[in-house]
Amino acid sequence: MMIGRLNHVGVATPSIEESVKTYRDLLGATKIHDAFDLPPQGVRVCFVDLPNSQIELIEPLGEASPIHKFLEKNPSGGQHHVCFEVADIHVAAADMKEKGATVLGEPRIGAHGTPVIFVHPKNMGGVLVELMETPKAAH
Amino acid sequence: MMIGRLNHVGVATPSIEESVKTYRDLLGATKIHDAFDLPPQGVRVCFVDLPNSQIELIEPLGEASPIHKFLEKNPSGGQHHVCFEVADIHVAAADMKEKGATVLGEPRIGAHGTPVIFVHPKNMGGVLVELMETPKAAH
Repeated sequence: MMIGRLNHVGVATPSIEESVKTYRDLLGATKIHDAFDLPPQGVRVCFVDLPNSQIELIEPLGEASPIHKFLEKNPSGGQHHVCFEVADIHVAAADMKEKGATVLGEPRIGAHGTPVIFVHPKNMGGVLVELMETPKAAH
Repeated sequence: MMIGRLNHVGVATPSIEESVKTYRDLLGATKIHDAFDLPPQGVRVCFVDLPNSQIELIEPLGEASPIHKFLEKNPSGGQHHVCFEVADIHVAAADMKEKGATVLGEPRIGAHGTPVIFVHPKNMGGVLVELMETPKAAH
C-alpha cells in the first residue's frame, strides 16, 4: 500500500457556521461548499477548497456523535484527522491489519462518496488517519 | 488577503526517526527528505512528500522548544499546525492584525526558506495556523 494525495485535513468545530466565517472573512478562502449531514458517521461536514487540497469542517450530528468527546477536550475545536487517498480501500485495510495497525470499523462510504477507513492514532504517532479510496473520475 | 495552497500539516513527534518508519513502512510514503535543525524555532523537522502537499514532522530541539509543551499534553505526538501559503507575508500579517487576530511574533524565515507567521489558535477555531510566503520559484 502507498498513500497518495493529502485529500483533506479534518477540523472539528462546535459551529460550522462560525468556522466558515473564519475561513472566508479572516483567511480569505473563496470556495466553500454547502454543508451537509452524514448521519451514519454522526457528523455534519463542510468542505473548504484550497488550490491543492481541502479543509473538512466537522460538527457533531446527534447525541452519539464521535465529535462530542473531541470537543469536550477541545471546546473551541481543533485538528481532528488527516485524510490520505489510497487506490483500493480493501487492499489498504488488509495491509494495515497485516502490519499490526488497528483499523476502526469496516470500510464505509465517506464524505466524498468513496469508501474510507480510520486507523487508530496509537499506530500513527498520535494522529487519527483516514484512508479514502480515490474517486475514480477525479484528478 | 487570500490563502493559497495547503503547504503542509505540521505533526509533532517525540522522535522523527520513529515517525519516518510509520510514514515509510506503514503508510508507504516514498519520498521522505532528510531531517534538519531549525535552531531559531527550537525544532528539528523532516518533510514527507505527498503528490500534492507535505507532512512536516517536528521534533523538539533544545530545552526551550515550543514543542515540549505540546508533547507533554500529547506524549505520542499529534497534529500541531496547518500551513497555508500566502503571496506576501507582510500583507498577510497586517491583514490578520487589522482583523483583530493575534499574530505570534514577527515574520521569520521558516522551514522552506521563506518568511512565515503563526496566528493564535483562539482566532482560528482551535487550530494553530502558519502562514507562509509562497517560494518564488515553486509550483
